[in-house]
Amino acid sequence: MNKNSSNIMALAPNTSNKRETVCIFGTGDFGRALGHKMIQSGYPIVFGSRSTQKSSLIPNDAEVLSHAEAAQKAAIIIIAIQRQHYNFLTPLAEILHGKVLVDISNNLKINQYPESNAEYLAQLVPGAKVVKAFNTVSAWALQSGTLDASRQVFVCGDDMEAKQMVMDIVRALGLTPLDQGSLLAAQEIENYPLQLFPMWKFPILLSLGLTAFFFFYCLTLDIIYPYVYENKDFSFFIAISIPNRICPILALILLALVYLPGVLAAIIQLYRGTKYHRFPDWLDKWMLCRKQLGLVALAFASLHVLYTLVIPIRSFVRWRISSSTVSQALNNKTEPLNNTYAWLSDSYLALGILGFFLFVLLGITSLPSVSNNVNWREFRFVQSKLGYLTLVLCTAHTLVYGGNRFLNPSSYRWYLPNAYMLSLIVPCIVLVVKFVLVFPCLDKPLTQIRQGWERNPKYSK
Amino acid sequence: MNKNSSNIMALAPNTSNKRETVCIFGTGDFGRALGHKMIQSGYPIVFGSRSTQKSSLIPNDAEVLSHAEAAQKAAIIIIAIQRQHYNFLTPLAEILHGKVLVDISNNLKINQYPESNAEYLAQLVPGAKVVKAFNTVSAWALQSGTLDASRQVFVCGDDMEAKQMVMDIVRALGLTPLDQGSLLAAQEIENYPLQLFPMWKFPILLSLGLTAFFFFYCLTLDIIYPYVYENKDFSFFIAISIPNRICPILALILLALVYLPGVLAAIIQLYRGTKYHRFPDWLDKWMLCRKQLGLVALAFASLHVLYTLVIPIRSFVRWRISSSTVSQALNNKTEPLNNTYAWLSDSYLALGILGFFLFVLLGITSLPSVSNNVNWREFRFVQSKLGYLTLVLCTAHTLVYGGNRFLNPSSYRWYLPNAYMLSLIVPCIVLVVKFVLVFPCLDKPLTQIRQGWERNPKYSK
Amino acid sequence: MNKNSSNIMALAPNTSNKRETVCIFGTGDFGRALGHKMIQSGYPIVFGSRSTQKSSLIPNDAEVLSHAEAAQKAAIIIIAIQRQHYNFLTPLAEILHGKVLVDISNNLKINQYPESNAEYLAQLVPGAKVVKAFNTVSAWALQSGTLDASRQVFVCGDDMEAKQMVMDIVRALGLTPLDQGSLLAAQEIENYPLQLFPMWKFPILLSLGLTAFFFFYCLTLDIIYPYVYENKDFSFFIAISIPNRICPILALILLALVYLPGVLAAIIQLYRGTKYHRFPDWLDKWMLCRKQLGLVALAFASLHVLYTLVIPIRSFVRWRISSSTVSQALNNKTEPLNNTYAWLSDSYLALGILGFFLFVLLGITSLPSVSNNVNWREFRFVQSKLGYLTLVLCTAHTLVYGGNRFLNPSSYRWYLPNAYMLSLIVPCIVLVVKFVLVFPCLDKPLTQIRQGWERNPKYSK
Repeated sequence: MNKNSSNIMALAPNTSNKRETVCIFGTGDFGRALGHKMIQSGYPIVFGSRSTQKSSLIPNDAEVLSHAEAAQKAAIIIIAIQRQHYNFLTPLAEILHGKVLVDISNNLKINQYPESNAEYLAQLVPGAKVVKAFNTVSAWALQSGTLDASRQVFVCGDDMEAKQMVMDIVRALGLTPLDQGSLLAAQEIENYPLQLFPMWKFPILLSLGLTAFFFFYCLTLDIIYPYVYENKDFSFFIAISIPNRICPILALILLALVYLPGVLAAIIQLYRGTKYHRFPDWLDKWMLCRKQLGLVALAFASLHVLYTLVIPIRSFVRWRISSSTVSQALNNKTEPLNNTYAWLSDSYLALGILGFFLFVLLGITSLPSVSNNVNWREFRFVQSKLGYLTLVLCTAHTLVYGGNRFLNPSSYRWYLPNAYMLSLIVPCIVLVVKFVLVFPCLDKPLTQIRQGWERNPKYSK
Repeated sequence: MNKNSSNIMALAPNTSNKRETVCIFGTGDFGRALGHKMIQSGYPIVFGSRSTQKSSLIPNDAEVLSHAEAAQKAAIIIIAIQRQHYNFLTPLAEILHGKVLVDISNNLKINQYPESNAEYLAQLVPGAKVVKAFNTVSAWALQSGTLDASRQVFVCGDDMEAKQMVMDIVRALGLTPLDQGSLLAAQEIENYPLQLFPMWKFPILLSLGLTAFFFFYCLTLDIIYPYVYENKDFSFFIAISIPNRICPILALILLALVYLPGVLAAIIQLYRGTKYHRFPDWLDKWMLCRKQLGLVALAFASLHVLYTLVIPIRSFVRWRISSSTVSQALNNKTEPLNNTYAWLSDSYLALGILGFFLFVLLGITSLPSVSNNVNWREFRFVQSKLGYLTLVLCTAHTLVYGGNRFLNPSSYRWYLPNAYMLSLIVPCIVLVVKFVLVFPCLDKPLTQIRQGWERNPKYSK
Repeated sequence: MNKNSSNIMALAPNTSNKRETVCIFGTGDFGRALGHKMIQSGYPIVFGSRSTQKSSLIPNDAEVLSHAEAAQKAAIIIIAIQRQHYNFLTPLAEILHGKVLVDISNNLKINQYPESNAEYLAQLVPGAKVVKAFNTVSAWALQSGTLDASRQVFVCGDDMEAKQMVMDIVRALGLTPLDQGSLLAAQEIENYPLQLFPMWKFPILLSLGLTAFFFFYCLTLDIIYPYVYENKDFSFFIAISIPNRICPILALILLALVYLPGVLAAIIQLYRGTKYHRFPDWLDKWMLCRKQLGLVALAFASLHVLYTLVIPIRSFVRWRISSSTVSQALNNKTEPLNNTYAWLSDSYLALGILGFFLFVLLGITSLPSVSNNVNWREFRFVQSKLGYLTLVLCTAHTLVYGGNRFLNPSSYRWYLPNAYMLSLIVPCIVLVVKFVLVFPCLDKPLTQIRQGWERNPKYSK
């Protein structure tokens, strides 16, 4: 802890035994919660407020003074005030000169103001060292002590020493500071708590679009077609049968889309003969959301498993089996076991089970606490080798499910292929290209390129 | 690292290159394990012991001296001795003056002594700076290096600098220090390793009570009633049928109890017109164990899913279906498909699947490593929006399952409602009240109150 | 941060406001990625390179100088060069004297060289303080900022102060340094990223061996026997029926093997009358991979659950049920409900469900983020009490599944017992011995021994 930066501590009788006083401007919810937590961690706290009358909500051990008096008592001043009221700090500029001002504010909308609140504060009080911190922590989490939501505190600022002082406080409160660099990062830090799963946007929109398309496709083939041609009302298929067609299709397509960008990147690198040229932007973005794509695919696969396992409980299925058995009995004949069909049925189920099992394994290793405990080689082994094995198994599951229906003209209602055939296009492309890339004549140059070799070094300059 | 606090290091030729010597009183399991680990991390270790004869179990690099000699060699002394023997430290008071004494002891029972061991130590050696630490770490975990159990070390003490020195050692051993404040926290820290899931006590007791009640309720209606009136022995229902009635009932009730306190809190805040008044104690406690309630509910829901999925494998169910099919065949009639019943059966299954799927998602986001990686808005979105959606789906699942049985008098054996009807009471109340609270005439003042507005500011003083 | 170790910073006008310059030798992928990340975190970076011509790939804010010039500008030099080229450092020995050299290199094979790269570097430049670090982090992870793979950086070195400086940098980059002790640990640290699940090797090899054995055993009894004696082709059993025999057998045996070493250790301790004698090596190793054994067992149990739940969907099963129903109808008789069989069927399913449920709970608590949040007593309660309960339930599930088949001679084809009977041997031994050990006449001395009491203190020397 730096002693020079404190101009008050010299007055304290037992310097080495105390943490430095911290001043908090504003006695709102967050200011009080932070003050309370800091007192618990051994920091003397002084509040700066318009009214120095002490409310019952303010921690007993804290002093409440005017802004100017409070600021003089500490080297670090936490500004727990909304941005609209920052201009009251201008008259205090002289007192605040050289102090560390901690901006903890949040906005209501992403990019609400042209500059971040912390940069605005730095403009208002040019002599102070502004550090952005604590905006991702909620007052409730600070008070209740159950910091489940997040222990990470993003910190940024132009002054290294000031930033270090704030990070020491963050650590003392049992939180984890993450240095985000200079004050330019404040905009991003202020936007962070307003974001709602930004990495998930593309995978979820994509799967919604595909879901809608396949829903109407299956609706046409499975409900409208039999209604028109056979006058049968299968509208209840909307509840389980059609979701159970859509889910595996989406799971397979999305899983293939996880591995497609890697294959595309290999082709681009082979074509260019170097890895030192940036990929197109869309490919970069695609590669960054592969984990999310894979997890959405896993969600669809899990739904598919649940929908499939309840099949024998469905009243429609029980009726169908029972009426076929009754009609066999009435016709006085017993069907022999069709061995081919038993093989097909058992092997597509077995392939599906193994594929789903590996898929769940992939999902578990993508949990942050698990992936933090494996090394790079292990992570790549799981995500690449096991991932491709999953894709192979799931594609085989779909192919065997199709069985000899591919050649059966009755599968092509209104000359349209069955929906599951459409789902095979992307995974088959990925697997074929990957298979081609494994051949030594392509694998060897690719490995060299990835180790830094360049066929044509003009790109690197 | 603080150089003044060491009175021995000046003798070392190459000060900057060495960590400071640490003394350990006691050569028991934990003392040796800690010494071993600290030597690995570069700390010179000296043991203080009654017999200075060196046992083969003590690390080779460590010296063993008498207590007095050992204490003089180090600024930090770790007391690896049981509380009963602390009084041998009284004669050493002079040597221990100004030293940092680290109390690592644990008790056998919660609140075994009136004051914590660390406070007792501070009374015995008033001149020393006592710090409580390391009591949550086991000797086995230190030695084997696989610190799976817990990396967190709670630290407390009245002297900031002494605490900081101990926390530096904790960090150097690869553990995570958590500052718990002054020595008053020692009692709580000493109780911590003796606790057995304190937050889970209420949810588990509650679910045991409800389980017992619903078990006897279902036993009466499903086994005793048919035995008395129809002389049928359905005692084997105890194995699967009755658990599969109890589990969904408990899952639904407990899930509703997760959201009930939030609804109650909103009503209280609206009535009081302020948020600055503490909730009653029971409500506070209830709110703090919502996560545990939800996870117990998820456990029951998972069991319900497993119990339901094995239904078609049960020998009783196979017999029932087979005999109904045989009787249809013998009566020479085939039942037509009941379209309404197919709709009801499929939609209650679909609602259950979707509800369970979202429930599992909620469970996954409550894993510490996942919830640490989402921001506050995302966490609230998942736990509140998705949570209510789960509750709506699960309630709808139960309602559709009931179908037209609600009005069927044969469902009311002995004039008692079916058990699942009882389970609908709490969730329906929660959903209705929540629905009312969403109306603007209530939602707007509630939002204002939660932003700090007060209808009647008398409470805040 | 230590100011003496920097011989350049004194030239900077505003020392306290800046982090110290760091020099990076080598402008390869990792050197650039690390430089980029360090600039983001506020470190001035200077690259040392053979060609001082600045490539477009090098961060704009970094200088590129000759090796000698660059080294003079910083106290810390990161050697981002492959081991083969280290000898170019020999002429620079004078400039590098007293500097901190950070070895970040990795090898291609485990134990590729007799000494670690870091020790080799220390031999080449004896005057420098060599620290090993950063070798577990990938360039890609540094650049993309999504450090999912691992945030842990192992650090080792003989000079405490140098190590501390490097650990401060590690922390500033948002990574977690783990001090591994002196430079002797470098070999292990360099091997770490080349390892592929070393702890999993034994459990996986063991389960592969057992799988192969039981596969051929079941193949013989379930496919070859009926083919030879009844001329029935059940070859499609390979897809589901036989895996669904092997999986539960392996799950049960492996789960029992998790608890067997604990029981053996207790017997050894009771026999020796002390705990201060090391266990044989194989027992130590076995105990360290219990978690992995348990997780492999859980994987087999999960597969067993999936294979079991798809049973009613299998075309063979549907055919068998349907033909038995048809033959009942044709013979004009309805079988009555066999109450004993209903009891057996329901209770073995219920035991399996409860056992699997507890098994999944055990698996969840072994997730790093969950086990870090429970104290030692809670962890032991879950892993020991709940673990034994799981073993009891799973063993009972298998016993009840056997039912009265044990005594039925038709179960013994070719005089061989059914495969599931073999799976009961190990768990029954473990449970019987554990039951015996719970008796006070054995439990009391065992508890005393584990608290440090010795029957015969000769072992402790």
